[in-house]
Amino acid sequence: LAGGFFIAVDWGTSHLRAYLCQWNEDNSLQLLDQRGGPGVVKIDTDFKTALLNCICPWQQKYGPLPIFMAGQINSSIGWQVTPYLDCPIKPQEIANSCLNFDCEGHRLILLPGVRCALQNNLQDVMRGEELQILGFLQLQPSYKTGTILLCLPGTHTKWVLLKDGQINCFKTAMTGELFDLLCHQSVLIQQDSAMGDFDWTAFEQGCEFTLSSDSGNFVHGLFSVRTRQLSGEMTALQAKAYLSGVLIGSDVRAAKHAKEWQLTQGSEVVVIGTPRLNRCFATALSSIGVQCHEFDVQSATLSGFSELYQLMKQTRTTCL
Amino acid sequence: LAGGFFIAVDWGTSHLRAYLCQWNEDNSLQLLDQRGGPGVVKIDTDFKTALLNCICPWQQKYGPLPIFMAGQINSSIGWQVTPYLDCPIKPQEIANSCLNFDCEGHRLILLPGVRCALQNNLQDVMRGEELQILGFLQLQPSYKTGTILLCLPGTHTKWVLLKDGQINCFKTAMTGELFDLLCHQSVLIQQDSAMGDFDWTAFEQGCEFTLSSDSGNFVHGLFSVRTRQLSGEMTALQAKAYLSGVLIGSDVRAAKHAKEWQLTQGSEVVVIGTPRLNRCFATALSSIGVQCHEFDVQSATLSGFSELYQLMKQTRTTCL
Repeated sequence: LAGGFFIAVDWGTSHLRAYLCQWNEDNSLQLLDQRGGPGVVKIDTDFKTALLNCICPWQQKYGPLPIFMAGQINSSIGWQVTPYLDCPIKPQEIANSCLNFDCEGHRLILLPGVRCALQNNLQDVMRGEELQILGFLQLQPSYKTGTILLCLPGTHTKWVLLKDGQINCFKTAMTGELFDLLCHQSVLIQQDSAMGDFDWTAFEQGCEFTLSSDSGNFVHGLFSVRTRQLSGEMTALQAKAYLSGVLIGSDVRAAKHAKEWQLTQGSEVVVIGTPRLNRCFATALSSIGVQCHEFDVQSATLSGFSELYQLMKQTRTTCL
Repeated sequence: LAGGFFIAVDWGTSHLRAYLCQWNEDNSLQLLDQRGGPGVVKIDTDFKTALLNCICPWQQKYGPLPIFMAGQINSSIGWQVTPYLDCPIKPQEIANSCLNFDCEGHRLILLPGVRCALQNNLQDVMRGEELQILGFLQLQPSYKTGTILLCLPGTHTKWVLLKDGQINCFKTAMTGELFDLLCHQSVLIQQDSAMGDFDWTAFEQGCEFTLSSDSGNFVHGLFSVRTRQLSGEMTALQAKAYLSGVLIGSDVRAAKHAKEWQLTQGSEVVVIGTPRLNRCFATALSSIGVQCHEFDVQSATLSGFSELYQLMKQTRTTCL
């Protein structure tokens, strides 16, 4: 692989995030450029065009490159479906089950997803977060031993139980997707109130409302996002932050009640998201006495792709 | 008012429902015609054109008529805002607080809304349901005494506590709006699976999932609508009914935990909705031992407008 250049694509439900990377001879990764594009649900069927449009400037400069792709793009609502690997699983095992195909001269390497069995004959699935976990553990190897609860917020929150570096089980909450739908397409928020600073006081009020609830405050209280504006108590901008708090509070509350792990006062959770979402979840978790360690999701993602690239080079996988 | 003709408009978030009515000399209401149109959130600002388009054939035949309007159309996201009347209140009191204005020769009579104070400095609001309750009590006068819990499902479910014919307090759940958003715009349901009979078994499975939950099954279990399809356990059509069950189960569960009333085994609830929604809520309520009486919401609505018309005639309100 001349020059060690490759493209890493984290293509989720809401966003396409592409990174032009170079693996240096001193075993370090260099991020040369990054570009964005539409998420999986925003594209009808022509994923190929969306990808080629996104990486066009890189193609012109570097020619065909290997392209690693993780996320919802490899699911049943995406382009080509890769299988789910069953838990418990070490994140690095995903390197052995990639799907390869050619696309206009580029070699595409599609990552598998991960699946776990839960109580009541339920299962849960993830795509993309396993790569972030791989990268996180590479950056923070001390978390490779012991029992660790991770929280990866995004379009969907993933709560992941790690045991000695293995993904043991996990649960999904649709918190980010609900926020997006309720913010832009429901009766709750009327004006586009995107302008203005995030109101942390209103956020904490929303958190408190669902986190402190015995039961039912989320389902029968969500409408308070509207009534608090009708009464003049909140502006639309405040109501938006309050809605975020109501949703994240209900997410953390459900994690507190989960039977798969113990989340009590004095527990620790590692939160891996954007700085804003990390602070939101850390605020909610702190309010119930949980200690948080925050890590940036983009660093974890790039570290994951980097680790994957190395693993594939070591095993001389045909595609590289 | 020559001929006793009038137009009754139930204009909610999702639908405009207009009825051409005639009040007969024998004190009975005759429904002559009905027409539909877009709900309040589907119109940018031109409510006047939407209304005139809807009633155009009636205007051509009958000329200007009084038009009674109830629902979200009279709220801050609608056309002209009418005030909220505070609980406790008898539904017939709304007749005294209508807003009147002229619109292309038609006399518009806009109903007020109703507001109640809840615990934790929260309030709740309704628009349109107070008219349905007025109509229901007219059709079923035996419910004018005692303490009665009503459930009015729709875009928003309203749980309403009646005491001796007065609306005492109520709570809103966004169940119908969430179902619509999640069905058509989320990752949960991919294909348009509208074709085919409603799967009651899948519905009951969804109800059971949230109704029997200690806590957290809704927030951390909603994603099972997708995973049950991925595993091949459910088709998209079944998943849609299951989603309906998950949402309605969580709504009924929240009603069971509400502090404003007692909803326990042996309680009675009056459900006032469409036949399908009535059966959905009755199924969920029955599964926790609650007895349901089902009433058709359109009959209640028309009876409400009819009662309003009579009340206004009696008090010689200027508009008639």
